[in-house]
Amino acid sequence: METGTGRTKHRLIASDRVEGTPVRRSNGETIGTIERVMIDKLSGKVAYAVMGVGSLLGLSHKEFTLPWGVLHFDPDLDAYRLDLTDDQLREAPREGGERTDPSFEREWEEHVHRYYNATPYWGVSDPMSEGR
Amino acid sequence: METGTGRTKHRLIASDRVEGTPVRRSNGETIGTIERVMIDKLSGKVAYAVMGVGSLLGLSHKEFTLPWGVLHFDPDLDAYRLDLTDDQLREAPREGGERTDPSFEREWEEHVHRYYNATPYWGVSDPMSEGR
Repeated sequence: METGTGRTKHRLIASDRVEGTPVRRSNGETIGTIERVMIDKLSGKVAYAVMGVGSLLGLSHKEFTLPWGVLHFDPDLDAYRLDLTDDQLREAPREGGERTDPSFEREWEEHVHRYYNATPYWGVSDPMSEGR
Repeated sequence: METGTGRTKHRLIASDRVEGTPVRRSNGETIGTIERVMIDKLSGKVAYAVMGVGSLLGLSHKEFTLPWGVLHFDPDLDAYRLDLTDDQLREAPREGGERTDPSFEREWEEHVHRYYNATPYWGVSDPMSEGR
């Protein structure tokens, strides 16, 4: 139970706890594992979580870019819950850039957010980055 | 050079690039290394970077909590630049909680931000978390 100032508790999570956390379907099947998060330097917001999928599906490029907002931790699964079918995963946006120097293009970012029906991180809550 | 949509490039940095990056004074002296960042789950904003200092100063608790906004990468130093003297470091807020279950209190967070003269991450750009 939260006490006192309440809402300030357990609001923070460490990046190295997110990294390594599995991503599973509601039925418990593991899709992948979070490799890292991508931070927007300007706003300080976490934009994406990058999920690695190992040898799943025989895909050649095995990192998927998930908008941060689509990750919901499910204690019962002990994982982030994401109900993507194999077919949906085959179509899902994969990590394009070289990981040490990611050059995300806004057009590609819009595609990623549409795919997951996610609210863009550069949206109304970050007026500094709008209209320039 | 940035081209096309321009400002969308190189705006993102990976959490596992931040982790392990040294923190140095302008004169090149190494203070510590970033161990992880702390993410505010509600807003998706990076609240803090936690810096480990090894055996420096003989301190018993060796993790310092830095507001994300105080970190500025200096290519010449190949490190985040932070000009804290040894005396300032002795007085600086250290990580208090258990790392796998951080329970930051707002009062303590305010102290941290005052210490570094940093803008709180729960400020005006995040109206969802204000006044409740």
